[in-house]
Amino acid sequence: MSFKKITIAGAGTLGSQIAFQAAFYGFTVSIWNPHPDRAIRRLNKVQKMYKQEMGITDSDVKRAMKNIVEITNDMEIATKNTEYVIESVPENLEIKGIFYQKMCQVLPKDVILASNSSTLVPSQLVKFVDRPEKFLHMHFANHIWKFNTSEIVGNEKTDKEVIDKVVEFAKEINMLPIVLKKEQSGYIMNSLSVPYLNAALGLWAKGVADPMTIDKDWMKATGSPMGPFMSLDAIGLRTTYAIFNAHAEDAAAKAIADKLKQMIDEGHYGIEAGEGFYKYPHPAYESADFLKV
Amino acid sequence: MSFKKITIAGAGTLGSQIAFQAAFYGFTVSIWNPHPDRAIRRLNKVQKMYKQEMGITDSDVKRAMKNIVEITNDMEIATKNTEYVIESVPENLEIKGIFYQKMCQVLPKDVILASNSSTLVPSQLVKFVDRPEKFLHMHFANHIWKFNTSEIVGNEKTDKEVIDKVVEFAKEINMLPIVLKKEQSGYIMNSLSVPYLNAALGLWAKGVADPMTIDKDWMKATGSPMGPFMSLDAIGLRTTYAIFNAHAEDAAAKAIADKLKQMIDEGHYGIEAGEGFYKYPHPAYESADFLKV
Repeated sequence: MSFKKITIAGAGTLGSQIAFQAAFYGFTVSIWNPHPDRAIRRLNKVQKMYKQEMGITDSDVKRAMKNIVEITNDMEIATKNTEYVIESVPENLEIKGIFYQKMCQVLPKDVILASNSSTLVPSQLVKFVDRPEKFLHMHFANHIWKFNTSEIVGNEKTDKEVIDKVVEFAKEINMLPIVLKKEQSGYIMNSLSVPYLNAALGLWAKGVADPMTIDKDWMKATGSPMGPFMSLDAIGLRTTYAIFNAHAEDAAAKAIADKLKQMIDEGHYGIEAGEGFYKYPHPAYESADFLKV
Repeated sequence: MSFKKITIAGAGTLGSQIAFQAAFYGFTVSIWNPHPDRAIRRLNKVQKMYKQEMGITDSDVKRAMKNIVEITNDMEIATKNTEYVIESVPENLEIKGIFYQKMCQVLPKDVILASNSSTLVPSQLVKFVDRPEKFLHMHFANHIWKFNTSEIVGNEKTDKEVIDKVVEFAKEINMLPIVLKKEQSGYIMNSLSVPYLNAALGLWAKGVADPMTIDKDWMKATGSPMGPFMSLDAIGLRTTYAIFNAHAEDAAAKAIADKLKQMIDEGHYGIEAGEGFYKYPHPAYESADFLKV
């Protein structure tokens, strides 16, 4: 295996999934989190999702959890004997900057360090790090057991062997490694999906067609199992609203934000609310004749 | 059935597919084309594709072709006893304008008239027509037997009954009707796919990642059977180049056009050339382990 022990720093939505995925695939994992109790609650949630969606058993969970050897708010303990640290602390440049400065003070110089940041690029974070040649980004998508890609990209100084080793690790935890040749805001997946989701929201806000019609057209014409509004229900409309509202000086963005706001005010903000563009737990698109002519 | 007889005006790539699809589903079809011999050659090609991709037999073809009762360059003959005319003449406002003026001179006032235009909207064409309440757009995608959607949209005056009748017809020829509430350049499908394909081409032109990596990331993350570069190979790189070259004053568009030009100059312009981003007839994505971790 690529690493004898790895450390996940920050056990939020994604950090807890990465920790469990690695432990499930046999890695010895330690978790650093400022609030260990919250990390434990997150891990419990993750276990439930793996059982429901992956059909793993209680004994699979037990075996995986045995590999999580520490959950601590002490960086020195969390990083003891570690060979790879994946940072997944809140998505904020200042918070990440403080984290890296503290982490580099305790972390042996030969340990590889990766960020799971979804919105920042390596050149923004590498300045906080004392080992640019051992620093890179390894980006996971939510629900990593299902959407199992890892977008991997270095900074200008990252050693090729470091990239190769992380690619090997990705495969060992059943992630398809997607290596970028240079940094890109949004990596590949968000660079493609954001303009596509924007276009779908624009058609809806302009009243060209309703969400279900748009989804059906896309699915039938591309063979995809999902349309844009199903993805938006999964992402959650509150997250989507925040993005468009931040650009409300643009009339098209404001029109989208206003329509989303109305849905959110009615409590229909996506799958987690039980209703968004579709009603859950049995959305129309699960019906066998959703795409029937 | 919705119509006793229909007329396809213009038997190019799509017109010939619409004619065959309607005839295959039992409609009596006449074809108007300025060059009947070319229409026949197109229909022969279409027959081959249906046999190859849909597995229909020679006797199915024979039965369908019996329903195509005229192929003529005479508008009066082509429209005799017809109840519905679908225009699929070249994608040019002037050509379409002349066509509609001539067609309306011979066509009885109660006949419904639709345009299959992919780039023009109803408000641009309705001014050439003497029956706005019976005029609408019915837009098909290339390879209609597989990508079986019909995007349907009226102009401001189109009768609701006319829309309903064309929706019924769409279903009868096995097309999923996608009804737009108002006109939209690119309808729904192109409004979504153009920004998505642009983004993919931008990542490639900027050197962020190679086409196969981008396709894999999209497919794994969305469950879609196709990535953007597979779609581009199907569309053809010469068509794509023409679009980006027309906006070459924009540096990003020019960078994409330049890279496409290079591939076209090497003869690698898509599936029809045997090579594009992938090599055909056995492209890498057909391999069982294309998405293997």
